[in-house]
Amino acid sequence: MKKRGEIQIHPLVEPLAYLLGTWRGEGRGHYPTIDDFSYSEESSWDHDGRPFLYYRQNTWNLATGAPSHSEAGFWRVKDGGRIELVIAHNNGVVEVQSGTFKGTRIEVASTELSSAPTAMTIGGLARVFEVVGDSLSYELAMAFDEHASQNHLTATLQRQSG
Amino acid sequence: MKKRGEIQIHPLVEPLAYLLGTWRGEGRGHYPTIDDFSYSEESSWDHDGRPFLYYRQNTWNLATGAPSHSEAGFWRVKDGGRIELVIAHNNGVVEVQSGTFKGTRIEVASTELSSAPTAMTIGGLARVFEVVGDSLSYELAMAFDEHASQNHLTATLQRQSG
Repeated sequence: MKKRGEIQIHPLVEPLAYLLGTWRGEGRGHYPTIDDFSYSEESSWDHDGRPFLYYRQNTWNLATGAPSHSEAGFWRVKDGGRIELVIAHNNGVVEVQSGTFKGTRIEVASTELSSAPTAMTIGGLARVFEVVGDSLSYELAMAFDEHASQNHLTATLQRQSG
Repeated sequence: MKKRGEIQIHPLVEPLAYLLGTWRGEGRGHYPTIDDFSYSEESSWDHDGRPFLYYRQNTWNLATGAPSHSEAGFWRVKDGGRIELVIAHNNGVVEVQSGTFKGTRIEVASTELSSAPTAMTIGGLARVFEVVGDSLSYELAMAFDEHASQNHLTATLQRQSG
Protein backbone atom coordinates (compact mmCIF):
# COMPACT_ATOMS: atom_id res chain seq x y z
CA MET A 1 0.00 0.00 0.00
CA LYS A 2 1.00 3.62 -0.42
CA LYS A 3 2.63 5.46 2.42
CA ARG A 4 0.21 7.97 3.84
CA GLY A 5 2.50 10.89 3.07
CA GLU A 6 1.99 10.13 -0.62
CA ILE A 7 -1.79 10.13 -0.35
CA GLN A 8 -3.76 13.24 -1.17
CA ILE A 9 -5.73 14.53 1.75
CA HIS A 10 -9.52 14.40 1.41
CA PRO A 11 -11.06 17.86 0.81
CA LEU A 12 -13.26 17.46 3.89
CA VAL A 13 -10.18 16.78 6.03
CA GLU A 14 -8.14 19.65 4.57
CA PRO A 15 -9.47 22.25 7.08
CA LEU A 16 -8.15 20.02 9.91
CA ALA A 17 -4.81 19.18 8.28
CA TYR A 18 -3.09 21.20 11.01
CA LEU A 19 -3.77 18.26 13.36
CA LEU A 20 -1.85 15.70 11.28
CA GLY A 21 1.19 14.28 13.00
CA THR A 22 2.28 13.54 16.55
CA TRP A 23 1.93 15.83 19.54
CA ARG A 24 3.52 15.47 22.99
CA GLY A 25 3.11 17.37 26.21
CA GLU A 26 1.71 17.33 29.70
CA GLY A 27 -1.64 17.65 31.37
CA ARG A 28 -3.31 17.84 34.75
CA GLY A 29 -6.39 16.01 35.94
CA HIS A 30 -8.76 16.49 38.82
CA TYR A 31 -12.21 15.39 39.87
CA PRO A 32 -14.15 15.36 43.14
CA THR A 33 -13.83 11.57 43.37
CA ILE A 34 -10.03 11.31 42.95
CA ASP A 35 -6.73 12.94 43.91
CA ASP A 36 -5.28 15.51 41.52
CA PHE A 37 -2.75 14.03 39.08
CA SER A 38 -0.33 15.05 36.33
CA TYR A 39 0.38 13.13 33.15
CA SER A 40 2.48 13.12 30.03
CA GLU A 41 0.73 12.52 26.73
CA GLU A 42 1.35 11.52 23.14
CA SER A 43 -1.48 11.97 20.68
CA SER A 44 -1.46 11.49 16.93
CA TRP A 45 -3.71 12.14 13.98
CA ASP A 46 -3.20 10.43 10.63
CA HIS A 47 -5.16 10.03 7.38
CA ASP A 48 -5.39 7.68 4.41
CA GLY A 49 -7.23 9.87 1.90
CA ARG A 50 -10.68 9.13 3.23
CA PRO A 51 -12.82 11.76 5.00
CA PHE A 52 -11.68 10.97 8.52
CA LEU A 53 -8.63 11.14 10.76
CA TYR A 54 -7.12 8.22 12.61
CA TYR A 55 -6.73 9.23 16.27
CA ARG A 56 -4.61 7.69 19.02
CA GLN A 57 -3.91 9.01 22.49
CA ASN A 58 -1.69 7.59 25.23
CA THR A 59 -0.95 9.12 28.61
CA TRP A 60 1.50 8.19 31.36
CA ASN A 61 1.68 9.00 35.03
CA LEU A 62 4.12 11.92 35.14
CA ALA A 63 5.70 10.79 38.42
CA THR A 64 6.13 7.07 37.71
CA GLY A 65 6.10 6.83 33.91
CA ALA A 66 3.50 4.06 34.13
CA PRO A 67 0.95 3.91 31.31
CA SER A 68 -2.29 5.61 32.33
CA HIS A 69 -5.07 6.18 29.79
CA SER A 70 -5.28 5.12 26.13
CA GLU A 71 -7.78 5.96 23.41
CA ALA A 72 -8.12 5.07 19.75
CA GLY A 73 -10.67 5.88 17.09
CA PHE A 74 -11.70 8.02 14.19
CA TRP A 75 -12.61 11.66 13.66
CA ARG A 76 -15.19 11.79 10.86
CA VAL A 77 -15.18 15.17 9.16
CA LYS A 78 -18.45 16.39 7.65
CA ASP A 79 -19.29 19.45 5.62
CA GLY A 80 -20.37 22.69 7.22
CA GLY A 81 -17.74 22.46 9.96
CA ARG A 82 -19.36 19.45 11.57
CA ILE A 83 -17.38 16.56 13.04
CA GLU A 84 -18.13 13.19 14.64
CA LEU A 85 -15.69 11.32 16.88
CA VAL A 86 -15.95 7.58 17.56
CA ILE A 87 -13.50 6.54 20.26
CA ALA A 88 -12.70 3.39 22.26
CA HIS A 89 -10.96 3.75 25.63
CA ASN A 90 -8.75 1.15 27.30
CA ASN A 91 -10.88 1.50 30.45
CA GLY A 92 -13.78 -0.16 28.64
CA VAL A 93 -15.70 2.91 27.52
CA VAL A 94 -16.80 3.64 23.94
CA GLU A 95 -18.13 7.00 22.92
CA VAL A 96 -19.62 8.94 20.07
CA GLN A 97 -18.97 12.67 20.14
CA SER A 98 -20.56 15.21 17.83
CA GLY A 99 -19.76 18.87 17.36
CA THR A 100 -18.25 21.57 15.23
CA PHE A 101 -14.94 23.10 14.26
CA LYS A 102 -14.09 26.63 13.19
CA GLY A 103 -10.52 27.42 12.22
CA THR A 104 -8.30 25.73 14.79
CA ARG A 105 -10.96 25.39 17.48
CA ILE A 106 -12.91 22.13 17.80
CA GLU A 107 -15.79 21.58 20.22
CA VAL A 108 -17.47 18.22 20.68
CA ALA A 109 -19.68 16.52 23.25
CA SER A 110 -20.79 12.95 23.72
CA THR A 111 -24.03 11.82 22.12
CA GLU A 112 -23.53 8.14 23.02
CA LEU A 113 -21.53 6.54 25.84
CA SER A 114 -21.43 2.82 26.57
CA SER A 115 -19.33 0.65 28.83
CA ALA A 116 -18.06 -2.91 28.83
CA PRO A 117 -19.66 -5.17 31.47
CA THR A 118 -16.84 -4.69 34.02
CA ALA A 119 -16.11 -1.02 33.20
CA MET A 120 -17.14 2.26 34.86
CA THR A 121 -20.12 4.20 33.56
CA ILE A 122 -19.56 7.81 32.53
CA GLY A 123 -22.43 10.31 32.36
CA GLY A 124 -20.99 12.57 29.67
CA LEU A 125 -17.79 13.89 28.09
CA ALA A 126 -17.15 17.19 26.32
CA ARG A 127 -13.89 18.28 24.69
CA VAL A 128 -12.56 21.57 23.40
CA PHE A 129 -9.34 21.57 21.35
CA GLU A 130 -7.50 24.65 20.18
CA VAL A 131 -4.32 24.86 18.15
CA VAL A 132 -2.17 28.01 18.20
CA GLY A 133 0.97 27.67 16.11
CA ASP A 134 2.67 24.43 17.12
CA SER A 135 0.80 24.21 20.42
CA LEU A 136 -2.39 22.19 20.93
CA SER A 137 -4.40 22.70 24.10
CA TYR A 138 -7.49 20.83 25.15
CA GLU A 139 -9.95 20.67 27.99
CA LEU A 140 -12.12 17.69 28.77
CA ALA A 141 -15.22 17.96 30.94
CA MET A 142 -16.84 14.89 32.46
CA ALA A 143 -20.11 14.09 34.18
CA PHE A 144 -19.64 11.10 36.48
CA ASP A 145 -21.64 9.52 39.27
CA GLU A 146 -23.69 12.31 40.91
CA HIS A 147 -21.32 15.02 39.66
CA ALA A 148 -22.49 17.37 36.92
CA SER A 149 -20.22 17.96 33.92
CA GLN A 150 -17.07 19.77 35.05
CA ASN A 151 -13.45 20.11 34.02
CA HIS A 152 -11.52 16.85 34.40
CA LEU A 153 -8.44 17.27 32.18
CA THR A 154 -6.41 20.21 30.86
CA ALA A 155 -3.35 19.64 28.68
CA THR A 156 -1.03 21.41 26.29
CA LEU A 157 0.88 19.47 23.63
CA GLN A 158 3.63 20.52 21.23
CA ARG A 159 3.86 19.42 17.61
CA GLN A 160 6.64 16.90 17.05
CA SER A 161 8.71 17.14 13.91
CA GLY A 162 9.30 14.08 11.77
CA MET B 1 9.27 5.18 27.29
CA LYS B 2 10.18 1.53 27.04
CA LYS B 3 9.71 -0.30 23.79
CA ARG B 4 6.88 -2.77 24.08
CA GLY B 5 9.11 -5.73 23.31
CA GLU B 6 10.96 -5.00 26.54
CA ILE B 7 7.80 -4.94 28.62
CA GLN B 8 6.66 -8.01 30.47
CA ILE B 9 3.31 -9.26 29.34
CA HIS B 10 0.50 -9.05 31.91
CA PRO B 11 -0.43 -12.48 33.33
CA LEU B 12 -4.05 -12.03 32.20
CA VAL B 13 -2.86 -11.39 28.63
CA GLU B 14 -0.41 -14.31 28.60
CA PRO B 15 -3.03 -16.87 27.39
CA LEU B 16 -3.65 -14.65 24.33
CA ALA B 17 0.01 -13.86 23.62
CA TYR B 18 -0.30 -15.91 20.41
CA LEU B 19 -2.21 -12.95 18.94
CA LEU B 20 0.62 -10.43 19.40
CA GLY B 21 2.03 -9.06 16.18
CA THR B 22 0.77 -8.31 12.70
CA TRP B 23 -1.37 -10.58 10.53
CA ARG B 24 -2.18 -10.23 6.84
CA GLY B 25 -4.49 -12.09 4.53
CA GLU B 26 -7.72 -12.00 2.59
CA GLY B 27 -11.40 -12.27 3.27
CA ARG B 28 -14.77 -12.41 1.60
CA GLY B 29 -17.92 -10.54 2.49
CA HIS B 30 -21.54 -10.95 1.64
CA TYR B 31 -24.91 -9.78 2.88
CA PRO B 32 -28.44 -9.70 1.46
CA THR B 33 -28.25 -5.91 1.06
CA ILE B 34 -24.97 -5.71 -0.92
CA ASP B 35 -22.94 -7.40 -3.65
CA ASP B 36 -20.38 -10.01 -2.60
CA PHE B 37 -16.87 -8.60 -2.21
CA SER B 38 -13.30 -9.66 -1.46
CA TYR B 39 -10.78 -7.78 0.62
CA SER B 40 -7.22 -7.82 1.83
CA GLU B 41 -6.61 -7.21 5.51
CA GLU B 42 -3.93 -6.24 7.98
CA SER B 43 -4.70 -6.65 11.67
CA SER B 44 -2.41 -6.20 14.64
CA TRP B 45 -2.42 -6.82 18.36
CA ASP B 46 0.04 -5.16 20.70
CA HIS B 47 0.43 -4.74 24.47
CA ASP B 48 2.10 -2.40 26.96
CA GLY B 49 2.12 -4.56 30.09
CA ARG B 50 -1.44 -3.76 31.12
CA PRO B 51 -4.26 -6.35 31.02
CA PHE B 52 -5.46 -5.55 27.51
CA LEU B 53 -4.38 -5.76 23.89
CA TYR B 54 -4.24 -2.85 21.46
CA TYR B 55 -6.17 -3.83 18.34
CA ARG B 56 -6.11 -2.33 14.85
CA GLN B 57 -7.67 -3.64 11.68
CA ASN B 58 -7.52 -2.24 8.14
CA THR B 59 -9.02 -3.75 5.01
CA TRP B 60 -8.71 -2.86 1.35
CA ASN B 61 -10.81 -3.67 -1.68
CA LEU B 62 -8.99 -6.63 -3.22
CA ALA B 63 -9.68 -5.51 -6.79
CA THR B 64 -8.85 -1.80 -6.54
CA GLY B 65 -6.58 -1.58 -3.48
CA ALA B 66 -8.72 1.24 -2.11
CA PRO B 67 -9.05 1.43 1.70
CA SER B 68 -12.26 -0.21 2.83
CA HIS B 69 -12.95 -0.75 6.54
CA SER B 70 -10.91 0.30 9.58
CA GLU B 71 -11.26 -0.52 13.26
CA ALA B 72 -9.30 0.36 16.38
CA GLY B 73 -9.74 -0.40 20.05
CA PHE B 74 -8.84 -2.55 23.00
CA TRP B 75 -9.31 -6.17 23.99
CA ARG B 76 -9.67 -6.27 27.77
CA VAL B 77 -8.70 -9.68 29.14
CA LYS B 78 -10.42 -10.85 32.32
CA ASP B 79 -9.90 -13.91 34.48
CA GLY B 80 -11.81 -17.11 33.88
CA GLY B 81 -11.37 -16.93 30.10
CA ARG B 82 -13.57 -13.85 29.79
CA ILE B 83 -12.82 -10.99 27.39
CA GLU B 84 -14.33 -7.60 26.56
CA LEU B 85 -13.70 -5.75 23.28
CA VAL B 86 -14.25 -2.01 22.88
CA ILE B 87 -13.92 -1.00 19.24
CA ALA B 88 -14.44 2.14 17.14
CA HIS B 89 -15.09 1.78 13.40
CA ASN B 90 -14.30 4.35 10.73
CA ASN B 91 -17.90 4.05 9.51
CA GLY B 92 -19.09 5.76 12.69
CA VAL B 93 -20.00 2.71 14.76
CA VAL B 94 -18.72 1.98 18.27
CA GLU B 95 -19.23 -1.36 19.91
CA VAL B 96 -18.72 -3.30 23.10
CA GLN B 97 -18.32 -7.03 22.67
CA SER B 98 -18.24 -9.55 25.49
CA GLY B 99 -17.38 -13.23 25.41
CA THR B 100 -14.94 -15.97 26.22
CA PHE B 101 -11.75 -17.59 25.01
CA LYS B 102 -10.49 -21.12 25.37
CA GLY B 103 -7.08 -21.99 23.98
CA THR B 104 -6.82 -20.33 20.59
CA ARG B 105 -10.56 -19.91 20.04
CA ILE B 106 -12.27 -16.62 20.94
CA GLU B 107 -16.01 -16.02 20.75
CA VAL B 108 -17.55 -12.61 21.37
CA ALA B 109 -20.83 -10.86 20.66
CA SER B 110 -21.93 -7.26 20.92
CA THR B 111 -23.52 -6.06 24.15
CA GLU B 112 -23.60 -2.40 23.10
CA LEU B 113 -23.68 -0.82 19.63
CA SER B 114 -23.97 2.90 18.97
CA SER B 115 -23.63 5.05 15.89
CA ALA B 116 -22.57 8.58 15.10
CA PRO B 117 -25.40 10.88 13.96
CA THR B 118 -24.72 10.37 10.23
CA ALA B 119 -23.70 6.67 10.45
CA MET B 120 -25.58 3.45 9.77
CA THR B 121 -27.21 1.55 12.64
CA ILE B 122 -26.21 -2.08 13.13
CA GLY B 123 -28.41 -4.53 15.02
CA GLY B 124 -25.68 -6.85 16.30
CA LEU B 125 -22.21 -8.23 15.63
CA ALA B 126 -20.69 -11.55 16.67
CA ARG B 127 -17.14 -12.72 16.01
CA VAL B 128 -15.35 -16.04 16.25
CA PHE B 129 -11.55 -16.10 15.95
CA GLU B 130 -9.42 -19.23 15.79
CA VAL B 131 -5.67 -19.51 15.48
CA VAL B 132 -4.04 -22.69 14.16
CA GLY B 133 -0.28 -22.42 13.92
CA ASP B 134 0.52 -19.20 12.07
CA SER B 135 -2.96 -18.92 10.57
CA LEU B 136 -5.78 -16.86 12.08
CA SER B 137 -9.31 -17.31 10.77
CA TYR B 138 -12.37 -15.38 11.79
CA GLU B 139 -16.03 -15.16 11.01
CA LEU B 140 -18.18 -12.14 11.69
CA ALA B 141 -21.96 -12.32 11.83
CA MET B 142 -24.12 -9.22 11.59
CA ALA B 143 -27.74 -8.33 12.18
CA PHE B 144 -28.72 -5.35 10.05
CA ASP B 145 -31.97 -3.73 9.04
CA GLU B 146 -34.65 -6.46 8.97
CA HIS B 147 -32.05 -9.22 8.55
CA ALA B 148 -31.36 -11.57 11.46
CA SER B 149 -27.75 -12.23 12.48
CA GLN B 150 -25.95 -14.08 9.69
CA ASN B 151 -22.45 -14.49 8.32
CA HIS B 152 -21.09 -11.27 6.83
CA LEU B 153 -17.29 -11.76 6.75
CA THR B 154 -14.93 -14.74 6.58
CA ALA B 155 -11.17 -14.24 6.47
CA THR B 156 -7.89 -16.06 6.98
CA LEU B 157 -4.74 -14.17 7.93
CA GLN B 158 -1.12 -15.29 8.19
CA ARG B 159 1.25 -14.23 10.93
CA GLN B 160 3.88 -11.76 9.69
CA SER B 161 7.41 -12.09 10.96
CA GLY B 162 9.19 -9.05 12.38
